Amino acid sequence: MFSEKFQPSPAQVLVVGFLILILLGTILLSLPIASASGEPLSPLDALFTATSAVCVTGLVVVDTGTFFSTFGQVVIMLLIQAGGLGFMTMATLIFLVLGKKITLKGRLVIQEALNQITLSGLVRLTKSIIILTLIIEGVAALILGIRFSQDVGLLRGLYMGVFHSISAFSNAGFDIVGGGVGLTPYRDDFVVNTVIMGLFIFGGLGFTVIVDIYTRGSIKKMALHSKFVLLLTAIFLVVGFLGIFILEYDNPATLGELSFVEKIMPAFFTGATTRTAGFNTIDTGSLEAGTLFFMLLLMFIGASPASTGGGIKTTTFGVLLVAVYAIIKGGDEVNLMNRRIPYHIVLKGLSIIVIGLIVVGTVTIVLSQTENQEFMNVFFEVVSAFGTVGLSTGITSELTTFGKGIIIVVMFMGRVGPLTLALALGRRYSKSKIRYPEERVLVG
Amino acid sequence: MFSEKFQPSPAQVLVVGFLILILLGTILLSLPIASASGEPLSPLDALFTATSAVCVTGLVVVDTGTFFSTFGQVVIMLLIQAGGLGFMTMATLIFLVLGKKITLKGRLVIQEALNQITLSGLVRLTKSIIILTLIIEGVAALILGIRFSQDVGLLRGLYMGVFHSISAFSNAGFDIVGGGVGLTPYRDDFVVNTVIMGLFIFGGLGFTVIVDIYTRGSIKKMALHSKFVLLLTAIFLVVGFLGIFILEYDNPATLGELSFVEKIMPAFFTGATTRTAGFNTIDTGSLEAGTLFFMLLLMFIGASPASTGGGIKTTTFGVLLVAVYAIIKGGDEVNLMNRRIPYHIVLKGLSIIVIGLIVVGTVTIVLSQTENQEFMNVFFEVVSAFGTVGLSTGITSELTTFGKGIIIVVMFMGRVGPLTLALALGRRYSKSKIRYPEERVLVG
Ligand SMILES: [K+]
Ligand SMILES: [K+]
Repeated sequence: MFSEKFQPSPAQVLVVGFLILILLGTILLSLPIASASGEPLSPLDALFTATSAVCVTGLVVVDTGTFFSTFGQVVIMLLIQAGGLGFMTMATLIFLVLGKKITLKGRLVIQEALNQITLSGLVRLTKSIIILTLIIEGVAALILGIRFSQDVGLLRGLYMGVFHSISAFSNAGFDIVGGGVGLTPYRDDFVVNTVIMGLFIFGGLGFTVIVDIYTRGSIKKMALHSKFVLLLTAIFLVVGFLGIFILEYDNPATLGELSFVEKIMPAFFTGATTRTAGFNTIDTGSLEAGTLFFMLLLMFIGASPASTGGGIKTTTFGVLLVAVYAIIKGGDEVNLMNRRIPYHIVLKGLSIIVIGLIVVGTVTIVLSQTENQEFMNVFFEVVSAFGTVGLSTGITSELTTFGKGIIIVVMFMGRVGPLTLALALGRRYSKSKIRYPEERVLVG
Repeated sequence: MFSEKFQPSPAQVLVVGFLILILLGTILLSLPIASASGEPLSPLDALFTATSAVCVTGLVVVDTGTFFSTFGQVVIMLLIQAGGLGFMTMATLIFLVLGKKITLKGRLVIQEALNQITLSGLVRLTKSIIILTLIIEGVAALILGIRFSQDVGLLRGLYMGVFHSISAFSNAGFDIVGGGVGLTPYRDDFVVNTVIMGLFIFGGLGFTVIVDIYTRGSIKKMALHSKFVLLLTAIFLVVGFLGIFILEYDNPATLGELSFVEKIMPAFFTGATTRTAGFNTIDTGSLEAGTLFFMLLLMFIGASPASTGGGIKTTTFGVLLVAVYAIIKGGDEVNLMNRRIPYHIVLKGLSIIVIGLIVVGTVTIVLSQTENQEFMNVFFEVVSAFGTVGLSTGITSELTTFGKGIIIVVMFMGRVGPLTLALALGRRYSKSKIRYPEERVLVG
């Protein structure tokens, strides 16, 4: 009776699925065997870590490399893989393994998870995603493993390769280098830089784009969405690099002491990591306030849709820019690359940015009151959580219980997506039959 | 030949008119007689002050009450009146006085200036604006004059009444109390608080709303725009009051030492002044960083369209919220109070907020590098300039030459309106005849 009346929307199924994963992770990470010392993590910190892993955020209250046992680290790695690859893809895998047919309901859920446009070809897409992910992560794990082996021996090196490969492709930002210094020991290491960046940039493009690249080959034949994502990603990488390079050029705590050429790689990495990867090769806390603000804006925009990355998404911001251009030109149709973008896509993009601004603004004001921290550090932390970035000026472990609780909620909201959450809470497709008469209001 | 080919748009006429007013003001304020000491103001500071007055911003590099002679203060007062009442309304007045008929071109310019919807009734509206403004400012000047007379004598008191009445109704935020302390000596003065607030809130509603109130009487009969403005203004006043009251409750440098009841008036004033009035009864530099951020968000939203206030405007933000609500409900029509808001109004609102965010973000990052000031103070200053607010943590006079130049440009852009500027620069009504095929991109 109840089950017939209650028809959960795809978005609602997504939200509940993520919550179950987080709960499972919290229990496992609270166990004494998850801790290196045997002293178990507090339930709140376990919840924080599990949420951060499932939401591929990367904010940490304890250092992943030193606090957790191998068991704890493997749990985190699996949570990242499940959260990053998408638990819906996982669900599809289970369906396939069990040999069951996918129902229309099941397809709709996957469609929501991947933010895909058509229902057709979803099973094929899911298979492609998993195969591609495993190949990419496997190759990268091997390269990283060989590199790390030089420092820590073969077995430990390969283990580190697997962990960082999964963490990077999933844009999770968790590292097990230890000492809470992130990837700073590898700041000038070409192999680690290029492999890690390659993984998180590729993962941040979104599955549909990756599959489009894989199946179409030439850019000309790709879908509008794929071309737009590649263009925007290139622009944001260049803007990020130039911004960091210029803003930190003279900062003695970051790039100041390096030669012109030496500055290039850390500047590019720091700009690129705002695509919500969350790894850092220079100390985030040493960056200048203006640089943090610059990164914060890029972090808010984030990666591309249906990807392992977060933020409001490159295309969301891109569509709004295209709409602004249309208005400036005096037209009311939003055209991009000789194609017209539908009205409701623009409205959806608008909703995402407005909800994002409200969430980030409100939470920042509240936490600036409750946390005894510099305003900019709080602001940065909130955007980092919302964009599932994981960069921090170092205040995460110093947050109050209230602050940790709020950041947990923001990480979750940031990953599930403001709009998906809004759709899950609201009633969808309840389109009113009434068409009201038009009346203008003045804006601007 | 040239004059036939070059058809300036209404927006371009507006921009040029404002520039001429600023230039005139700069020359007058550079004269030795404009200075109380006879030592003339530097050209840059004169330009800064003239821009601040014409754009009714209120940021000052020298204290208006002590640096300027009565001549200088009267120049500023006239620049404020011209900029606030709108130089286009002034132009209309000149037309009327000269007995000339208003051409269609002239009407279009006025329409742009007031952001009005129809061409009809513009002359009547302009007359109403001027008469209403003079009555309101006159009555308020008298009340304020009597109050100030108690402190400084009759003649000086009435003069101060006129200056502050014009400055308040125009949302200019200039004061001649002296000593660079704003209206802090009148923090607990009921008359000064209510009259000043009444003036700037009323002025910030926008001329069309004021005329609508004046001619229709009942709220029910008013235009959708007027009802929306009144609703949003009420909401922002309540939110502003509650925010300041809560955030500053314990701050010993602002509300902390006051009793619960005593906190109410300064909290309300500080919340209301973010409607881009720019007056302050408590020291802005003593507010907590979180409070500054809260005020900064309200300042960015600002007052209502076609008003003396600035910001992206209450209705711009309001329309976007309504659009977000529509998307959450699953529809694609943006309905408000049983009326449908046209697509292009939503797009226009979207453009204004996106351009505003880009301008504020970019300028803040640049100035955070060039100015040797705390990041939050720079951020606050930029939003204050863009929203033509005039509140400052006290860094205005300490800005570098480059910083002052940039703030001048931002004040101008903030007043002329990002969109008007964009329209003035771009080619309008150049609608393409080509209708491209529709293709979706993923957002969010
Ligand atoms: K991340
Ligand atoms: K002002």
